[in-house]
Amino acid sequence: MEISELLLKRRSIRKYLSEQVDDALLNDLLKMGCRTSTTGNMQLYSIIVTKDEERKKVLAPLHFNQKVVTMAPVILTFCADFNRFNKWCRLRKAEPGYDNFLSFITAAIDALLVAQTFAIAAESKGLGICYIGTTTYNADKIIEALKLPKGVIPVTTITLGWPDEEPEQVDRLPLDAVTHREIYRDYSDEDIENYYKEKEARNDSQLFIAENSKKTLAQVFTDVRYKKADNEHFSNVLLKVLKDQGFM
Amino acid sequence: MEISELLLKRRSIRKYLSEQVDDALLNDLLKMGCRTSTTGNMQLYSIIVTKDEERKKVLAPLHFNQKVVTMAPVILTFCADFNRFNKWCRLRKAEPGYDNFLSFITAAIDALLVAQTFAIAAESKGLGICYIGTTTYNADKIIEALKLPKGVIPVTTITLGWPDEEPEQVDRLPLDAVTHREIYRDYSDEDIENYYKEKEARNDSQLFIAENSKKTLAQVFTDVRYKKADNEHFSNVLLKVLKDQGFM
Repeated sequence: MEISELLLKRRSIRKYLSEQVDDALLNDLLKMGCRTSTTGNMQLYSIIVTKDEERKKVLAPLHFNQKVVTMAPVILTFCADFNRFNKWCRLRKAEPGYDNFLSFITAAIDALLVAQTFAIAAESKGLGICYIGTTTYNADKIIEALKLPKGVIPVTTITLGWPDEEPEQVDRLPLDAVTHREIYRDYSDEDIENYYKEKEARNDSQLFIAENSKKTLAQVFTDVRYKKADNEHFSNVLLKVLKDQGFM
Repeated sequence: MEISELLLKRRSIRKYLSEQVDDALLNDLLKMGCRTSTTGNMQLYSIIVTKDEERKKVLAPLHFNQKVVTMAPVILTFCADFNRFNKWCRLRKAEPGYDNFLSFITAAIDALLVAQTFAIAAESKGLGICYIGTTTYNADKIIEALKLPKGVIPVTTITLGWPDEEPEQVDRLPLDAVTHREIYRDYSDEDIENYYKEKEARNDSQLFIAENSKKTLAQVFTDVRYKKADNEHFSNVLLKVLKDQGFM
């Protein structure tokens, strides 16, 4: 498949065949991931590959036992990692100054760009992937489960396997809604109406509103899926993780 | 080119032909970028495309006038953006609860994954890209220059153009150095020696040490390129930006 087609037709895959992902293939994908740009070529990330059933049972509850996690043959946890770099510095009579917020963000950027290259590499081989957003919610418990030392924080997770579904592509806002030429042009109420009308009119959106007994699609997000109280709770957890792991 | 080859052979490009990047092509690349997974399909990002010479002159100093920025035909600033989503919520009688740290991280993840898909899409068309890490250093000034409203924070920048160089590929640590099976296996001094020895032995590393009058390669990072005092200063700036933009 041409790469444009691959990128334009992509869908997250949440159901996998029980067939394993070959280790040689997995290593090839990881190598492609690791060719991604990183800040100053410092490679401030680590990737934890979970395939063992017992380890998966430890990890799954930290992602609220989402089925996509429990049934995936491979779970990859992408971490911001200054631990390795700091150790190298100290061995080379260099005093690392990376115990601060900017350094966490720098390492998180490295880890996330690598994750996305890995995702595209996997999809180009016919594998299916799904991002798991709960990684930053339960970073403290994931740190414990994966034995991540100080200087290391998980930032995202990818589940990987051979697809056992062919889902429809989900909707996207029009390109104009998310891009700006030269400067940010803030949105008028009319812009918002225009950009969201297609999304709101979809059958699956209407179903989603009904299922959740809400009046608008936006309320499904604010009142059910991504609630203020949860966001505030997990913000505190994550800020504590940054402190405990030496970035604040 | 096969995608595996594209990903394995990639290099950042810092010199561009003066030839412009066609708007139709740029739009195609942005569309591919916007097919990337985002949290709950909320698309919590905005991409600011800078092509105008006058706007570039405003932006370049905020990236310390790096030559790659001043000479690039296109500069793309990828931003974490909850502004658009919040406006939609408020128009739909839904009260957004996204004025917190977790929500910033969620939106930053969305923006970064989109950036990397865009980068790969561009490279697949023969274009060259370079990531500009200074975006998080001067986020406050970039916000001003691009007129980013509350709820929007720039997280990375990509320069784009037709390549006018064919640089050597830079080194990478061995795959074993950055991947872990099942749990994180912390590094012994011997591991660090093994993993970094190839990097340290390279001619360009030796040259880099000599040019900077340092004793080890690590010291070039800690004492010249990524200094503690700078990191601490820019951490404070970035934390203030998070507060000012409504995420703390």
